[in-house]
Amino acid sequence: MGSRKGNGVVAQSGGPTAVINNSLCGVIQEWLNNNFTGMLLGALHGIRGVLENDFIDLSRQRRDIIEGLRVTPGSALGSCRYKLREEDYRKLLRIFKEKDIRYFFYIGGNDSMDTANRVNQLALEENYEMTVVGIPKTIDNDLPCTDHCPGYGSAAKFLAATVLETGIDLKGVLNNNRIKLMEVMGRNAGWLAAATALARRAEEDAPHLIYLPEVPFDREQFVRDVQKVYQKLGYVYIVVSEGIVDESGRYIVSASGRDSFGHCELGGLAGYLKELIEGRVESKVRCNVLGTAQRAAMHFASRADADEAYMAGVEAVRLAIRGRSGLMVTFIRGDQGEYLCLPSSVELGSVANVEKKVPREWINVEHNFVTEDFINYAKPLIQGEITIPTQDGLPYYQELERFPGALSAASN
Amino acid sequence: MGSRKGNGVVAQSGGPTAVINNSLCGVIQEWLNNNFTGMLLGALHGIRGVLENDFIDLSRQRRDIIEGLRVTPGSALGSCRYKLREEDYRKLLRIFKEKDIRYFFYIGGNDSMDTANRVNQLALEENYEMTVVGIPKTIDNDLPCTDHCPGYGSAAKFLAATVLETGIDLKGVLNNNRIKLMEVMGRNAGWLAAATALARRAEEDAPHLIYLPEVPFDREQFVRDVQKVYQKLGYVYIVVSEGIVDESGRYIVSASGRDSFGHCELGGLAGYLKELIEGRVESKVRCNVLGTAQRAAMHFASRADADEAYMAGVEAVRLAIRGRSGLMVTFIRGDQGEYLCLPSSVELGSVANVEKKVPREWINVEHNFVTEDFINYAKPLIQGEITIPTQDGLPYYQELERFPGALSAASN
Repeated sequence: MGSRKGNGVVAQSGGPTAVINNSLCGVIQEWLNNNFTGMLLGALHGIRGVLENDFIDLSRQRRDIIEGLRVTPGSALGSCRYKLREEDYRKLLRIFKEKDIRYFFYIGGNDSMDTANRVNQLALEENYEMTVVGIPKTIDNDLPCTDHCPGYGSAAKFLAATVLETGIDLKGVLNNNRIKLMEVMGRNAGWLAAATALARRAEEDAPHLIYLPEVPFDREQFVRDVQKVYQKLGYVYIVVSEGIVDESGRYIVSASGRDSFGHCELGGLAGYLKELIEGRVESKVRCNVLGTAQRAAMHFASRADADEAYMAGVEAVRLAIRGRSGLMVTFIRGDQGEYLCLPSSVELGSVANVEKKVPREWINVEHNFVTEDFINYAKPLIQGEITIPTQDGLPYYQELERFPGALSAASN
Repeated sequence: MGSRKGNGVVAQSGGPTAVINNSLCGVIQEWLNNNFTGMLLGALHGIRGVLENDFIDLSRQRRDIIEGLRVTPGSALGSCRYKLREEDYRKLLRIFKEKDIRYFFYIGGNDSMDTANRVNQLALEENYEMTVVGIPKTIDNDLPCTDHCPGYGSAAKFLAATVLETGIDLKGVLNNNRIKLMEVMGRNAGWLAAATALARRAEEDAPHLIYLPEVPFDREQFVRDVQKVYQKLGYVYIVVSEGIVDESGRYIVSASGRDSFGHCELGGLAGYLKELIEGRVESKVRCNVLGTAQRAAMHFASRADADEAYMAGVEAVRLAIRGRSGLMVTFIRGDQGEYLCLPSSVELGSVANVEKKVPREWINVEHNFVTEDFINYAKPLIQGEITIPTQDGLPYYQELERFPGALSAASN
């Protein structure tokens, strides 16, 4: 361990974030800055790239393209949602051995940390000397053991800015569409919906009501909340997490299907809530459902988040250099004065498949907004802007080059 | 006429745009820069502010707040959607006379130009010396007699950037949600949906299919289009205008109600099309419905659009100074070499209630994309970015001061 011998693989998994490529960039640049003897390969489309021998050579990329990853949203390597079977794990290890892959960096969320953990366990069982490091990534901010997750700050910033801007729009127009409902991502944790509270500076500002999956959603109380704000202000801006549940823990709008991990897929919540309100309040309800724009909006990403995502990638390589395997990079927040974010790490096993939720004490007693403690937690994460490269008035983003030679070069 | 005597009123109407306050700023600054003897009043919430004697004094605003309007979305004066009755027009003129209002600047879309036209007609009939000038505003770009409308370029830019970013997201993730459907504003004209074509640089880039209200929407052909792209690329990005219609001209998703002008209100189209596709294509469909974010996103507005919106406000006051009444400001595009946008004007009567649609020859023969001529038309309108003021990581937008004295000062 710590010999820097053998090849490395880095992969990205699950839903992208605006800054997931910052972590990739951190891994590549830190690898290139140290004396690794082997190649750094990028597995295309996450773990599937490894299983299907679909790699590109990251050491050969142009330096400006690598640097360009810092302002490029989406998964530059591609990602997947694929639940590994038992035989897949054995195949993974066989491929790692064949290619002399000694380092595996996996950028992902809960499910990916489980995958990384099992790869690490299997390598240990088979006495294959290998370093596995997880790099957190999720706009949902639901990974445990870390102050927050790379990707969250940028999604939070874009959502809060959109609520601020569309809230100004709503306030200004006297018509019969004075109730705005925004449905926000976050399967079982309400961090993103909560973050829209950052947009509010005065009582009349949007958002007025925020509903999170952490506390049961009461349909009748919801309508009364809306009526109350409407009577007071004449307009209402509501933010709802897609994953709100009733008293018995069932999704308010039940699943039309399940994804490959067995998670429910949500949809149509905004429309359902709109119908709940209309008829009970004079105004009509109009919905904003930003969908994947929430996790792709590099054009208004958080500088702090991008820098921290990059730092997480760098830290993963540093852990590998120190021979530390089976860990995920985490963030610790300095506990005095100005906001400070320091890298640390935790066993993959304590992260895998655990979801961190918004603490109950950060949700108000009415269950329809967050407290000042949440604001203090979230505010530092959205600080700073990024100047994106543009061409003809639109963002100009980089793509990695698909060096066809990389695959055969890697396969022996 | 041209005496610069008497007071002025400026008002904003209908749905806001990211740059509608640029036009307001142009009116205020040009008024203050000339030797008008009277006050410039802002009517709150459009024409209702005049009817209800609800004015603020714009001459007394702080200069930095006036300048701040250039980076502030939404209607700083507030707007409305209110269909005037016959008696309202007579009341309007009575109020204008009482307050010695000799200039009326109305920033709005089709309906507002109709209102402005009728006010002008009534003033002529009653021999009340008054100058009425309309300033175009609409993200829909559907006003006739002008090359394009202020507000369109910024909405087009934000939409195209969002399609570009979420298209990168879509391309990268191998899962079972590989069909993306974005529903875009535009009641009867497809200019906004068409503008998303600006995001596409290569065949595999989003968007792949665009459907506009200008040509009949064929449900079966639509499914075949989607299947064809899906078979070729493995993913599909579809953009649909909210106002698409069938062969007989009926909205594909029919109205749940009508607004106060008798227009249909649309909703639920994305969900309907999702159901059309699912079951016929292997992948599921996920929707992005940006709603009012389309018209409020000052954080990624077009510099060209903002400058032109400002110019339209300035030009309105210049027309007034020349004693030209009953006109709307228009834009003419220079016909050689580099893009050049020049102000001109047209009779309000030729604008009111006419909708300009995307020319058929700019829509491809398959009715599922736009031609290069459209791209050449739209590209100059989204050029350049705006640096917005921020505070704590979020946009910091100005509000006009509500000087309470203005009302009584104005009322005699």
